[in-house]
Amino acid sequence: MPEFLYGHWAVMETLRAGRRSVEQLVLAENVEEKDMVGEIVRLANERGLKVQRVPRRILDDLANGGNHQSVALRVGPYPYADTEDILSLAQQRGEKPFILLLDLLKDPQNVGVLLRVADAVGVHGVVIQERRSVSVTPAVVNSSSGAVEHLLVAQVTNLTNSMKDLKTQDVWMVGLEVGPDVPPIDKTDLNISLGLVLGSEGEGMRRLVRDTCDMLLSLPMRGKVGSLNVATAGSVALYAAWQARGWQGWAQG
Amino acid sequence: MPEFLYGHWAVMETLRAGRRSVEQLVLAENVEEKDMVGEIVRLANERGLKVQRVPRRILDDLANGGNHQSVALRVGPYPYADTEDILSLAQQRGEKPFILLLDLLKDPQNVGVLLRVADAVGVHGVVIQERRSVSVTPAVVNSSSGAVEHLLVAQVTNLTNSMKDLKTQDVWMVGLEVGPDVPPIDKTDLNISLGLVLGSEGEGMRRLVRDTCDMLLSLPMRGKVGSLNVATAGSVALYAAWQARGWQGWAQG
Repeated sequence: MPEFLYGHWAVMETLRAGRRSVEQLVLAENVEEKDMVGEIVRLANERGLKVQRVPRRILDDLANGGNHQSVALRVGPYPYADTEDILSLAQQRGEKPFILLLDLLKDPQNVGVLLRVADAVGVHGVVIQERRSVSVTPAVVNSSSGAVEHLLVAQVTNLTNSMKDLKTQDVWMVGLEVGPDVPPIDKTDLNISLGLVLGSEGEGMRRLVRDTCDMLLSLPMRGKVGSLNVATAGSVALYAAWQARGWQGWAQG
Repeated sequence: MPEFLYGHWAVMETLRAGRRSVEQLVLAENVEEKDMVGEIVRLANERGLKVQRVPRRILDDLANGGNHQSVALRVGPYPYADTEDILSLAQQRGEKPFILLLDLLKDPQNVGVLLRVADAVGVHGVVIQERRSVSVTPAVVNSSSGAVEHLLVAQVTNLTNSMKDLKTQDVWMVGLEVGPDVPPIDKTDLNISLGLVLGSEGEGMRRLVRDTCDMLLSLPMRGKVGSLNVATAGSVALYAAWQARGWQGWAQG
């Protein structure tokens, strides 16, 4: 079944990344080809893509009611990687592995934010479970601002098994928790071969996933309200880990 | 005009904080009084509040289409503070001031996330500009999970003037930027009397606001995608600042 990505950044980054097969660019009939839309059309022309103008309500349908910003892109399936690809990328860059593992996250918005931050801090890849978890849907591509098109994402049948497998390859599994009996994120050296594990919204990590972690870390909280959104907590933890690596790979100035 | 807050956490925390006048609790006619709704009804009864059952579509209207989770609360206006209240709270806690300043943010979702994190890291208050900026609307209360009901928020007529005023009271104004010529967040000691300034979505800080900052800091980025959402970037910066303070006020265990 053809899939339609939508939104300026999602479409732009998919064209830039060039990893998916792309079939057609769809624009709202009244949108002008300037600014980001102009750039998108330029990229589409470069790739010899057909550009089709349609009434706005067709785009509303293609985007399932998402915020399409007058642009959609008909594409082939997302090119999932596997954990070996992720470890190879680390090796190729000469860096200790830095992997994000998501345990049954359900909300495309949360997953999109985390993927965007994962790209920003230079993780080598992201591992998600195939069932009962969000996959790389158009909504996720959109909420990641297209960042996922540049990332390696492995979809595995059993997260715990993948964790065990990564452990045999000397990657430490570090679970993020909110809990008083767990040391805060800056009390552990995160400049290691790291798999950062995040639990799902509301429920946290499943028992077996938690038990498979080598360490648990907490994000301190001082306020009155119960817990932070997993996207916020995970973003802070990803940045803490990258900071521990001395902003490795940051091209400054 | 009466205002309706909506959503489990927004309503619960408003009742817990007890800072607003509350007039009526509104529930969907078919919702059971258990779990969070049960706790909300208990708190409402404690305060002698009238509880009214209405058809779900009435709640949809009261929440302006927001995700009300079958619950709304009719309330008086949000109790804004002023910058003096914020400085007094710092003094009362015996802590160096830790203030968040938002320059013309427009998106209630972003502002809500930032307020929730501001509460989590224990800022003494938040300063926003009265015009051309989001105020503490029901949508913001909702997206902050009610955290804003526990926070001091000052709404000022001119953000730059408030910054200048805070500077005369020895609070350093530190602006967050994404830029290659600006030092990263961990290269500056943030364990100071701190006003963290965030610019608006897309546009960043206004020129005058930026020029009024004592320092600019950047959040490093390594990925392919242009910039991070202000809510994500601000959350990471707030945590970095709290970490620099040694997680002051964190009641562990």
